[in-house]
Amino acid sequence: MSKAVPVRIALDAMGGDVGAGVVIPGAARALERRPDIEFLIYGDSAVVEPLLEQYPKLKAVTQFIHTSVSVKMGDKPSQALRQGRRTSSMWMAIEAVKNGQADCAVSAGNTGALMAMAKFCLRTMAHIDRPAIACIWPTLRGESIVLDVGASIGADARHLFDLAIMGSAMAQIVFGLERPTVGLLNVGVEDVKGLEEIKLAARMLKEADLSSLNYHGFVEGDDIGRGLVDVVVTEGFTGNIALKTAEGTAKQMAGYLRAAMSATWMSKLGYLLARGAFHALREKMNPRSSNGGVFLGLDGIVIKSHGGTDDIGFSSAVEIGYEMVRDQLMGRIHDSLMHNHPLAGAATADALETQMDKG
Amino acid sequence: MSKAVPVRIALDAMGGDVGAGVVIPGAARALERRPDIEFLIYGDSAVVEPLLEQYPKLKAVTQFIHTSVSVKMGDKPSQALRQGRRTSSMWMAIEAVKNGQADCAVSAGNTGALMAMAKFCLRTMAHIDRPAIACIWPTLRGESIVLDVGASIGADARHLFDLAIMGSAMAQIVFGLERPTVGLLNVGVEDVKGLEEIKLAARMLKEADLSSLNYHGFVEGDDIGRGLVDVVVTEGFTGNIALKTAEGTAKQMAGYLRAAMSATWMSKLGYLLARGAFHALREKMNPRSSNGGVFLGLDGIVIKSHGGTDDIGFSSAVEIGYEMVRDQLMGRIHDSLMHNHPLAGAATADALETQMDKG
Repeated sequence: MSKAVPVRIALDAMGGDVGAGVVIPGAARALERRPDIEFLIYGDSAVVEPLLEQYPKLKAVTQFIHTSVSVKMGDKPSQALRQGRRTSSMWMAIEAVKNGQADCAVSAGNTGALMAMAKFCLRTMAHIDRPAIACIWPTLRGESIVLDVGASIGADARHLFDLAIMGSAMAQIVFGLERPTVGLLNVGVEDVKGLEEIKLAARMLKEADLSSLNYHGFVEGDDIGRGLVDVVVTEGFTGNIALKTAEGTAKQMAGYLRAAMSATWMSKLGYLLARGAFHALREKMNPRSSNGGVFLGLDGIVIKSHGGTDDIGFSSAVEIGYEMVRDQLMGRIHDSLMHNHPLAGAATADALETQMDKG
Repeated sequence: MSKAVPVRIALDAMGGDVGAGVVIPGAARALERRPDIEFLIYGDSAVVEPLLEQYPKLKAVTQFIHTSVSVKMGDKPSQALRQGRRTSSMWMAIEAVKNGQADCAVSAGNTGALMAMAKFCLRTMAHIDRPAIACIWPTLRGESIVLDVGASIGADARHLFDLAIMGSAMAQIVFGLERPTVGLLNVGVEDVKGLEEIKLAARMLKEADLSSLNYHGFVEGDDIGRGLVDVVVTEGFTGNIALKTAEGTAKQMAGYLRAAMSATWMSKLGYLLARGAFHALREKMNPRSSNGGVFLGLDGIVIKSHGGTDDIGFSSAVEIGYEMVRDQLMGRIHDSLMHNHPLAGAATADALETQMDKG
């Protein structure tokens, strides 16, 4: 069946803090778990080819394309577009998706540049105005999807509605759920709280009563880590700050724990005995195991790996891309939009706004 | 000297999840550490008086006033104002500040109601349009102040500028710093990133070059937990979500740790040996030790204690109020505004806006 057709993944080998030294071993690791991947790898041959020699299995399923330009981690999006369009490893990996040579692209390069190139090269899907970045957030109950975590700043009710549809399509795939629960991030759970656009989005989601998602209501910041809903929807400014604040808090807790465990000889001995437990804990607290921001709303799949990740983290980003392709993320979003388009339409938003003004 | 004059603190004994059962022991605890406090306690005599009997030292410095109305934790601000104005324990504690009977008010009651009553009763300070809630945030380097964490939604550049002035006045007192460092919370540290109003506030702070604060630049979500700056400034929606997300993440990490420590007999034994270290860790992770949101920008000092706190947490909120009074928070904010008013004025903001449009 469809499993026989390989998934073709284009990699930007030059992105991230380390670059090819993480990307190539990461790809090899992903291939071990997903043997039906074929790779298109873009990068500087002087760096990439010697590394590929070390992974013969990977080399056997890889088409390597030399590129002489690399987008740097500090480049501004406009700068990256000016200097790297059509020539850089990042651009060419994205272009492979556009041309149909690859099913998705993965890069650990700079987020702003990657989003700018992806938007410029792939364009947004029909009925979607703006793309979003979705992340997989570890919770006490398992994992949730949070979006937008930084693709754009500000959102009207229609964009929040679109985010709910895109996020739940992703949750269907990643978590295997039929009708994921969706919450709108707000400063209180009562109907009267928060920004007007969030209240309007809530009404739109309630009234649309979509078959692809189960609208839960408003959620607050501490509900994310609790895993109260499968999908948390927010605009990119707040989402980015929530994500980074959570990462900062996790690091802070790990720092406290390290300090506490090395404070006395008793605690050091305790640490030695509980080493296995601490190891498991570190795995849970390490974002690399769920590494991979998914760009949603574009006419093609692009995965952003964390810039500072290791090969395990990068392989996880590749596998997320693999799953999105296998489970037809784009088709699902498209279907969901098609079915719900009349309700998601600007006309309805306007009608609702008028209604709310009267009410 | 001034230490001879007692600090008079008005308490809403009916606020919080528990109410007087936490407020009275909390006040007694604060009095042990700060013997120069006198209390005005407002609440239902049937509940409060038997509790006061248990703390004779507290009773000796307390004037108790019976109130028959209590604001409930679920009351909407408008409802609380309608039902509780002039009669509730919450209102009367605030009114004691207005009348000069008390130097500050402390309540563990519902935030929205407390802010609405405080605004209605005390009004905002001269030159301040909107009040803010500031919290003390534990970091890897110690503590920082983050504001606004939920008093109002949205902020123009002028309001962000005011938040910087108010937050640094509080940091001078709480941390004993002469010129606290201040950062504006944003989605990137480069000058070009983020919302227009944040960029404008950054220019206003740079150009004002205030003697009361040292403007650092933009900070990101993960910089809060690192303790990069003494004061983090953001508008109330994002600040509230950042605060609650951090609280949620801390709880989540504590949950992981508990699970890890009870997984095997080895880890359980390790836990027993490292018990002291875990106890110290719990203290660090527990927000009660820095409990107390400070309402800034009002013509009087009001402290909001966490609704779910215990007596230790409530005593910490009382002590924060004590410090604010002793170190003349209001006077400092007032002075800072007076010195910097021409720069903080709307005229300058407009001038800068025009300049930026041209630039």
